[in-house]
Amino acid sequence: MEKIETHRIFGGEQSVWKHASATLGCEMRFAVFVPDHAPGAKLPVIYWLSGLTCTEQNFITKAGAQSYAAKAGVILVAPDTSPRGEGVADDAGYDLGQGAGFYLNATEAPWAGHYRMYDYITEELPGLIEAGFPASERRSIMGHSMGGHGALVIALKNPGRYAAVSAFSPIVAPALVPWGQKAFTAYLGADRAAWAAWDATALLAQAGERLPILIDQGEADPFLEAELKPWLFEAAAAAAGHPLTLRRHEGYDHSYYFIATFIGEHIAHHAAALAA
Amino acid sequence: MEKIETHRIFGGEQSVWKHASATLGCEMRFAVFVPDHAPGAKLPVIYWLSGLTCTEQNFITKAGAQSYAAKAGVILVAPDTSPRGEGVADDAGYDLGQGAGFYLNATEAPWAGHYRMYDYITEELPGLIEAGFPASERRSIMGHSMGGHGALVIALKNPGRYAAVSAFSPIVAPALVPWGQKAFTAYLGADRAAWAAWDATALLAQAGERLPILIDQGEADPFLEAELKPWLFEAAAAAAGHPLTLRRHEGYDHSYYFIATFIGEHIAHHAAALAA
Repeated sequence: MEKIETHRIFGGEQSVWKHASATLGCEMRFAVFVPDHAPGAKLPVIYWLSGLTCTEQNFITKAGAQSYAAKAGVILVAPDTSPRGEGVADDAGYDLGQGAGFYLNATEAPWAGHYRMYDYITEELPGLIEAGFPASERRSIMGHSMGGHGALVIALKNPGRYAAVSAFSPIVAPALVPWGQKAFTAYLGADRAAWAAWDATALLAQAGERLPILIDQGEADPFLEAELKPWLFEAAAAAAGHPLTLRRHEGYDHSYYFIATFIGEHIAHHAAALAA
Repeated sequence: MEKIETHRIFGGEQSVWKHASATLGCEMRFAVFVPDHAPGAKLPVIYWLSGLTCTEQNFITKAGAQSYAAKAGVILVAPDTSPRGEGVADDAGYDLGQGAGFYLNATEAPWAGHYRMYDYITEELPGLIEAGFPASERRSIMGHSMGGHGALVIALKNPGRYAAVSAFSPIVAPALVPWGQKAFTAYLGADRAAWAAWDATALLAQAGERLPILIDQGEADPFLEAELKPWLFEAAAAAAGHPLTLRRHEGYDHSYYFIATFIGEHIAHHAAALAA
């Protein structure tokens, strides 16, 4: 693990690291914000999963999250969005392959060899964070768009493991929308029976844990009608009696300007759960 | 003037505009954040000048300034850093030509035809802002690095016109450092007598107005020793009896992570002066 970037911000340290990932079979990068803290302290960790085309850089440069994390005393971890490199399968589209890992474990060729972002996010990365940083084992998870899908799926598949989950503009029902159908067909194959294990709306129906979910969605989001469809998740939550706070925000779009506006509230939501 | 980008953020609107600049003889872009405000209200305006290589995008995506401007009720304007386009002179270096206008009026070929950023920032741009947005004629100015130089020079050359001035990591004495010497030789010619009119440290000695100046400087800034040298400005301020608050911040570098940490205090400083 090698530190390749470091900056002081809001009294803490924003760093970027690269390492050889055993899970993904390639070099990976992740970003970590560690707030100023007492010597020997162990801080809870919020994992942020970014959307299509993003790297570990987008969230740390554009969301303005460090200000709130510094006040709350929480570590922020932002990984890259897929395996990368010359030997890693890719696609010409922005919505498949490198930059579009969808936080799942692929089963189909040519993806299955490297595309195991689910295992990376739930196992390898927390191991690195908890061994290499002043991190406790208290974890929560959030994300944006494809990363909102990732956060919801990971929290729902791992009851008890995350103290909180939230999402901005998430792909809540990938099996039912073009982005998800393209990715799932490639990564998981044409048999839709395999898709339900990676679809937050499908998982919600059988969730064993009633972890409250916070979702913010902009009403001027250009992907709202075709790709995001939060009403599908809302209906599933109502049917299952699962606690969901879905907030619709007039005039806000899909960008980091939207995320920046509400990230403080998400971090407060996570910090409260992590401290409980 | 055409709006080419718009996003809601913190209850206000972040927009980006393009227009044919008569001053610069090319198409220019600028960004404007207008906070939520009462119908008919006229808000004061803070101009932000960015550093080398930047466009109108860097500040609006990375500084986290909109949050504070929304609370303070001030408009933020962030122009591009030079004339641009195929017919505009350029240089292979990042520190001369397009992206490096140095906020002056060039007198030498091939630059004099388009490189008139001083006139653009002090005349054409405020005219556009005050005609096209809910802006009062109360103005202040701040910037980063090359833009810190620009903000200081523009405030010092225009007594009474700006209610406040501040800078992050400014080039305070361009006539004495490599970045400035390269740019001034190209834009203004080899005769150093012409340089003093564009050098904040030289201008400070003869300033007719005692406008308090706020400067933040990171001590881990890689350009501190060779290019920035804030002690030269500090000495000139002491000699002239000019009010200067120069804050040195341990561990902070030249990046927007540094700016994000202290932009809230700069906006508070400007907002107080603009309201006075």
